[in-house]
Amino acid sequence: MSYSSKLLQEAVAALSMLPGIGKKSALRLSLYLIAERQEDVLREFIAPIAKMISDIKFCQICHNLADGEICSICVERSHKSNTICVVESIRDVMAIEDTDQYQGLYHVLGGVISPLDGIAVEHLNIESLVKRVEGHNIQEVIMAVSPTIEGETTIYYLSKRLQPLGVRVTLLARGISFGGELEYADGLTLGRSIVTRVPYEISEL
Amino acid sequence: MSYSSKLLQEAVAALSMLPGIGKKSALRLSLYLIAERQEDVLREFIAPIAKMISDIKFCQICHNLADGEICSICVERSHKSNTICVVESIRDVMAIEDTDQYQGLYHVLGGVISPLDGIAVEHLNIESLVKRVEGHNIQEVIMAVSPTIEGETTIYYLSKRLQPLGVRVTLLARGISFGGELEYADGLTLGRSIVTRVPYEISEL
Repeated sequence: MSYSSKLLQEAVAALSMLPGIGKKSALRLSLYLIAERQEDVLREFIAPIAKMISDIKFCQICHNLADGEICSICVERSHKSNTICVVESIRDVMAIEDTDQYQGLYHVLGGVISPLDGIAVEHLNIESLVKRVEGHNIQEVIMAVSPTIEGETTIYYLSKRLQPLGVRVTLLARGISFGGELEYADGLTLGRSIVTRVPYEISEL
Repeated sequence: MSYSSKLLQEAVAALSMLPGIGKKSALRLSLYLIAERQEDVLREFIAPIAKMISDIKFCQICHNLADGEICSICVERSHKSNTICVVESIRDVMAIEDTDQYQGLYHVLGGVISPLDGIAVEHLNIESLVKRVEGHNIQEVIMAVSPTIEGETTIYYLSKRLQPLGVRVTLLARGISFGGELEYADGLTLGRSIVTRVPYEISEL
């Protein structure tokens, strides 16, 4: 790419550091920012990003993103919930919050145990989870970890650590998706959903 | 989307201002920036973009992007070229520079004459082009404007203004693409390329 401006070239290089943004996209974004300059882009675009990078913290209790030492979920719900939902990432917290079906606490592991990727127990936020369960009045820990081999390994390990503490360990329900076509469900899920079939209950929704 | 952090929410809002970046992409980018924070992202990512937005200028001669008052192309080539290539946008300058086939000057119009979009002659960098041709020793003006209706209108208007000044006005060659399959060429291009066929010359490349 031929740049007549070194400033442009450096901004393109910075933007193309981002995942999924190539040189061409970065150029398009840069030219957009230049074109929109009159509306004080520096204040509207750069400032919030710079502020986030410099000020954002990880919650000292659940390791979710937080504006202060403790995240808003822990602040609001610590006194009224004794359930912890264990997830891999911050994005999983958002996904579950978006369902509006859960009002409890979270614990972000920061990944799953994966020897092949060099991720061991000590790289994850596991000790802090055990301490939370030991120290506070936690009655249930929901394992909302992906049902992959690494995820299952992590769930197994966590259960071994947590069950002796007298806490109830539960798992997200597994089976066919709502609204999915049966013929497109994968064989493993479909097979397991037959084996783990449940009694049909007429409910008034 | 449920954000536990207002800082994150504001950064996502800022990033999703960009064209082609939705909320989900903006969230992915924000989480990436947070994850990479240890390597002084503020310096590597934000600083070049902020610097570009605040410092970049448009060349006072050709309206290309420039780090100073005059762009690097004008500085390097003004004394040795008397050809101006007229383009619509800064991106067209880059595209032509990338071909390595042209060593002359440019003039960025900033668009084409398009009454339907409310773009008239006075909104484009046309007067400055006429002044360049009048004032300096310019011998040829190449019209490298898109062959659309608006582009053709613009070329016609510019030719009317420039030809009386004694300058040679030329047009990019038009015809079928190199390496393209004939059957996929559009009818207009194919038809015109038969009408404007050229003698075959055996050349030693």
